[in-house]
Order: sequence, then C-alpha cells, then structure tokens
Amino acid sequence: MSLITLTTDFGADSPYVAAMKGVILSHNPAARIVDVTHSVPPQDVRQGAWVLEEAAPWWPAGTIHVCVVDPGVGTSRKMICAVIADRLYLAPDNGLLSRLARRHRPTTIVALESRQHWLPTVSNTFHGRDILAPVAARLSLGLEPRELGPPLPELVDIAWSEVSVMPGKIKGTVRSIDSFGNLVTDIPADKLADVPTDPEKVRVQCDEHETQGLFKTYGDQPQMTLVAIIGSSGYLELAIVGDSAAMMLGVRAGTPVAVVW
Amino acid sequence: MSLITLTTDFGADSPYVAAMKGVILSHNPAARIVDVTHSVPPQDVRQGAWVLEEAAPWWPAGTIHVCVVDPGVGTSRKMICAVIADRLYLAPDNGLLSRLARRHRPTTIVALESRQHWLPTVSNTFHGRDILAPVAARLSLGLEPRELGPPLPELVDIAWSEVSVMPGKIKGTVRSIDSFGNLVTDIPADKLADVPTDPEKVRVQCDEHETQGLFKTYGDQPQMTLVAIIGSSGYLELAIVGDSAAMMLGVRAGTPVAVVW
Amino acid sequence: MSLITLTTDFGADSPYVAAMKGVILSHNPAARIVDVTHSVPPQDVRQGAWVLEEAAPWWPAGTIHVCVVDPGVGTSRKMICAVIADRLYLAPDNGLLSRLARRHRPTTIVALESRQHWLPTVSNTFHGRDILAPVAARLSLGLEPRELGPPLPELVDIAWSEVSVMPGKIKGTVRSIDSFGNLVTDIPADKLADVPTDPEKVRVQCDEHETQGLFKTYGDQPQMTLVAIIGSSGYLELAIVGDSAAMMLGVRAGTPVAVVW
Repeated sequence: MSLITLTTDFGADSPYVAAMKGVILSHNPAARIVDVTHSVPPQDVRQGAWVLEEAAPWWPAGTIHVCVVDPGVGTSRKMICAVIADRLYLAPDNGLLSRLARRHRPTTIVALESRQHWLPTVSNTFHGRDILAPVAARLSLGLEPRELGPPLPELVDIAWSEVSVMPGKIKGTVRSIDSFGNLVTDIPADKLADVPTDPEKVRVQCDEHETQGLFKTYGDQPQMTLVAIIGSSGYLELAIVGDSAAMMLGVRAGTPVAVVW
Repeated sequence: MSLITLTTDFGADSPYVAAMKGVILSHNPAARIVDVTHSVPPQDVRQGAWVLEEAAPWWPAGTIHVCVVDPGVGTSRKMICAVIADRLYLAPDNGLLSRLARRHRPTTIVALESRQHWLPTVSNTFHGRDILAPVAARLSLGLEPRELGPPLPELVDIAWSEVSVMPGKIKGTVRSIDSFGNLVTDIPADKLADVPTDPEKVRVQCDEHETQGLFKTYGDQPQMTLVAIIGSSGYLELAIVGDSAAMMLGVRAGTPVAVVW
Repeated sequence: MSLITLTTDFGADSPYVAAMKGVILSHNPAARIVDVTHSVPPQDVRQGAWVLEEAAPWWPAGTIHVCVVDPGVGTSRKMICAVIADRLYLAPDNGLLSRLARRHRPTTIVALESRQHWLPTVSNTFHGRDILAPVAARLSLGLEPRELGPPLPELVDIAWSEVSVMPGKIKGTVRSIDSFGNLVTDIPADKLADVPTDPEKVRVQCDEHETQGLFKTYGDQPQMTLVAIIGSSGYLELAIVGDSAAMMLGVRAGTPVAVVW
C-alpha cells in the first residue's frame, strides 16, 4: 500500500505541505499522496481530532495517515506511529488521535526515535517535513512500525466534554462548524435512537435558538428554516436551509445544545 | 481509464472531499483522483454549471467528472450519469450539467437507481460520498453506465439569461468573477467576431462604467486601466490591469454588460 | 520521471488550475501532478520567487516545476525552460526563478519558441494552459529542453533588497508572512552563525517591536511571547507563541528587521 494522506493546520494550499510531499516522493517516487485537509484551525488539536474521526475511517485499510497539528513542536512531546482499525497514523502524541482511539483501541503504538529513518538534518520547528514525511515514505515501502522506535503503552488523551443523557433530555455541545455553516454537535446518532422525531414531541435548543423535530434532510424544509438532522458524520447537526446557521445565529464551536422531549 | 475529477461546493480543502476520495480509493485503489474545484459558492448550481463548462472539456476523453452542488440532497431530485462529448458525468439532475449539455448533446443519460453499486448505508445528506463516489470507482473499473439504472430522455434544464444581439449592440451579463477579480461575461467570442475592436469605434459598458476598444490582453495596457478582452475561456471579460475589477468597481455576478459600436 | 508540480497565483482551488491539469493529462495520461501552491498573491512575482526557493528544492531530481505568476502575459516577455540543480522549471522569464538561480546557477536556459509543442490555439491571456501545460507533459514524456527553442545566456533578474552585515548588527527585511502569521525574514541562518543567542546578549527589532535572544523553537516559550528563531526554511523568523505575529503586531512584508548584539 503506497497511499499516504496528509491532515495539517498549515492552511489550504501551503508551500509547507508541498515541502512534505517533495520529501515523501524523494524517498518513494511511487507514493500516492492525497490531502485530507490543511484547514484545521492553527494549533487546534481538538478540531484536528474531530476531522480525523470524520475523514480517516473512509480510507482503505493500510492507508498511512500523516497528521500534523503540533503546537508543541520542538518540545518534549513525542512523535508516534499508531495502528488504529488497520490504518497507520503518524502524529505528535498530543491528543490528536484521541477521538479515533476512543472508537477503536490502537493495536500498536511506538515512539519515533530511530533517527536513521528521518532526514539527516532535523529542524526545530518542522517535524512534519523532517521526521513524519520520510517515515511515512519508508512505511509505504514496507518498513514495520516496530522498527521506528520503542513501544508505548498508550496514547496521550485529552479531556472531552461528555454528552449527558437524562430522562427526556440530552445535553451536548456544538463541536465544529462545517463549510456550509452547519453546526455539528458531539451528540451521536445512537444516543438519539429512542428519541421521538415528531415536531410536536421534541425540540432542539442551541443558545437562545430553538427548533422542533428531528429531520432526515434539509431539503424537505422551507428555505431559511432552522432544522435539526442526523448529519452524514453520524452526529446531530443544526442547519439553516439554504444558508449558514453559524453566520445567521452567531453560534460558535463550544455552544451548548440540548435535545428535549 | 481510471481518471476521476471532483467538482463540489464543499469548500477548498474540505474533509467531506477527503471522505469521498477515501471511498473511491477503497473501491478502486488504482483510481487517479484530481480536484477541479471545491469552491463553487455553496448550493449555487449556476456557478457550478459555468465552472464545468470552463474546466471539464480540457480533460481526456473517458474522464469521469463527479459533480456535487446539490441543494436538493435527500429530496426527490434524481442522481444521474450522463455521457457528454466522450466524458462521463455523475451529478444531481438539477441543471448542473446544463451549460455543458447546450454545447454537446448528451449521448447517454441514466438515473442512478441500482443500489448494489452504492455504499450499503446511504445517509440523507451526503449522496456524493454514499452514491457518487462508489459509482465513480465502479465506472473507472469498467462498469457500463447502463448498468447504473434506467435511461432518461433528457437532463433537467434551467433558464439562462440570453445574450441579445442587435444591430450595433450586444447585451449580456457578468456571469462570474474569477480569482483575479476579472468580470467574466456570458458574451461568447463568436458573437463578437464582426464587431470592430478599435477604441474609437466600440465601447463596453458595465453598470455605470465604460471602456473603449476590444483588446487581446491586459499586458498591453497601463496599470489600473479598465479593459475589455476575449478571455481564455472564450467569453468577453472586463479586467482592471494589475488589480481586481470586481473590487474596484463593486460589480457582482448578474450585472448587465453591453457592447456598443 | 513523470512528476510535475504547479505553482501559480490563480487562487487555491481555481478551475484555471484544473484546466492546466486536464491539458497535461490529455498529453500524458501517466503524468503525476502535485500542487505546490496556487496562493501566491496575485501577480506578485517576488512572493512567487520566495515560495519556489522554499518548496522546490525538496522535490526529487528530474521534477518538472511549472510556475505561473505572469503579470506580463501576452506581452513580449519570454516563456522559458531552465534546469536548476537537476530540476526543470517552466515559467515566464520575469524574475520568478531569480531566488533559485541565486542559489544554483542554471545549467540550461531555453526560450519556448517551438510552437509544435504548444496547444494548436494559444489564447492571449492563459499561457499556463496553452503553452506550459503541453510543454510540461512533453518533457515528462522525454522531450529534451533544447527542442523547445533557442538557448538564452541568462534569466531575467530582479532587484532584491540586500541583507547588510555590520559589526554587531545585521539588517534585513520581513519578506513574507506564513500561514501561521509568522514573520519570515530574508536573513539566512549562515549569517547568524557567529551571533550570540543568549537573551542578555542579542536583541531582534522589527518596526517598534523588540525581542531578546535567538531561540530554537516556539514551543519553549510562554504563550503570547514574541520570539526570534531560525525557521524551518533556514531564515530568521519572528513568531508570537500560539498566535499570529503578523496580526498581533500589524507587521507586513517589507518591514525592516535588525539583529543587534
């Protein structure tokens, strides 16, 4: 498998990404590199973790996902290789993989310490290019994760706000805003399985805004209506039909959401 | 042919795009995926149609163009596969292919109905990932369009403002703004073939702005001059040399344009 | 070698880029195309030159770098092919390659004049698509640069502000802002080799702002501190830990910088 993806906070279309791709292709000219996204908000490990949970599982087993959201670059934080659900992840060990690791326990975790697989000169501020890129290329050529360094017992975790389920009420949080301005929450579909969907029986609150019913899609509703749906990522979303809910309502990531029935 | 392109309104660098690529590569690891653009303005089927007219014909015969600008996702609008000028298009049937279809009559149109070629679970809001991506992969592996569902007699069309040609005058519209801020109109080069180009003999009006002459390129003119040229897409364009005409003049898509001689 | 990269000012995710890719793949379906960046500020040849210096050398020998920042398109400026440090560059001859050429003397320079390698019809405003794209594809298929046109003695150069080194002082300029808002200067690491790094012995000034010491990485410093480091591109950078220095300080490209000890 020579498929390598990149997820970073370098900004869409960054020449830093191009340098990483050049290094990968210098080590394995047959590598196939595909961008997941470079628009994780700068140094926002949490948003990076959500993006990886959303996008990474759709890739074939054996895919090498290179992930760089690394506010601690150059400090003592470790760089790691982890195998999660048959895909390989290269990342700083700062919680970036923690959403994925909650879904599937990593089967292998190693600290990247074997310097012979890195670029000969390693800068202090760009380990994506100098460590992760050559290591990804070598993994794509057949190197085994255990050759990269010593095993680690577990990944660094970070605290995630919990979704609370009570009789007649579920409380969660807007966890990200997608490119359409939809408000994606951290309330997963399975927690809503037994909640009524009828507009007369359930309402969804977000900040001082409220909408009634749980719908299947935006398309059924009149333009400019606020609707609650189970989004394509498997979480509750709030959307304004034909417009940006984030912009219209002034809601940001972190805003509390409640489903009440 | 394993070449698949993507044109969407998901936003540059969207993880939704990455999910589609992952699904395609899970079904055909040898597929070669290239982005056309993901910056079609959200749910703007018309701008999507112009982008496809501009970019799609430059690709090799046999290319599979996957196109997702889909405000009606989850409603009764059909998803279709169309063959136009030897290229395959997968798209919602909402007018997105209507500019292309005016240039070349589609030779095949089928409704996507054979669910065995889709993902086993289809969400209500992301048919690009759940229907078009696996279908594109299967087409790239040799599946025939007619195996995707029943034939349709024609594509959904949408109304396009007509360019009117009168003696000594052609009237059209600014149809899009390019990344340099140039105003691209819907007046095609062939309608201008017999119009004089001499600045003393022809003027081009846009809103309350006016420029004289039809030029071959911006580079001939002084900085900050408004010039009218036949752009690289084969349509009349208005540009300000060295700056953004859209910004400087405050002109948007939809503004009327007239060539008068 | 069938590896072709693209560096332009067309804007991230531009359909103009897609047209170039389509033309390349129409001529060589096996070409592997990778984006360096399309976010060079419009018509800013200098920023384009810096991006190329930063990103291009990381690519394998034989890579074909296609570079389009071309305010003079359609005028008498030449289009050229140059071989620099074993990589091939296709670009307008307007200084875009001048940073690279200062590092490594070009071994071959030819003017693109052999029209049989271009598209049959060449527009006046899009030579990237009509000339560079088909030429890049043909080079990737084995065409020799000397078949593209007559040799040129040298590339067009442009004036670059010089870094001045005095006893106890080095003066330079902020040359670009990266996607994190870091201020990248034109002062190279080698000029700083003998400068003390101790915060009590050296200070770095930028506009009315000042910071003490030369550090190895941002991660060692408290949040919101202004720090001077040798960046991953081998130049002095000023960064605010955890934030955008450009935004916080209101500093732009062109601002003077001094290292004083």
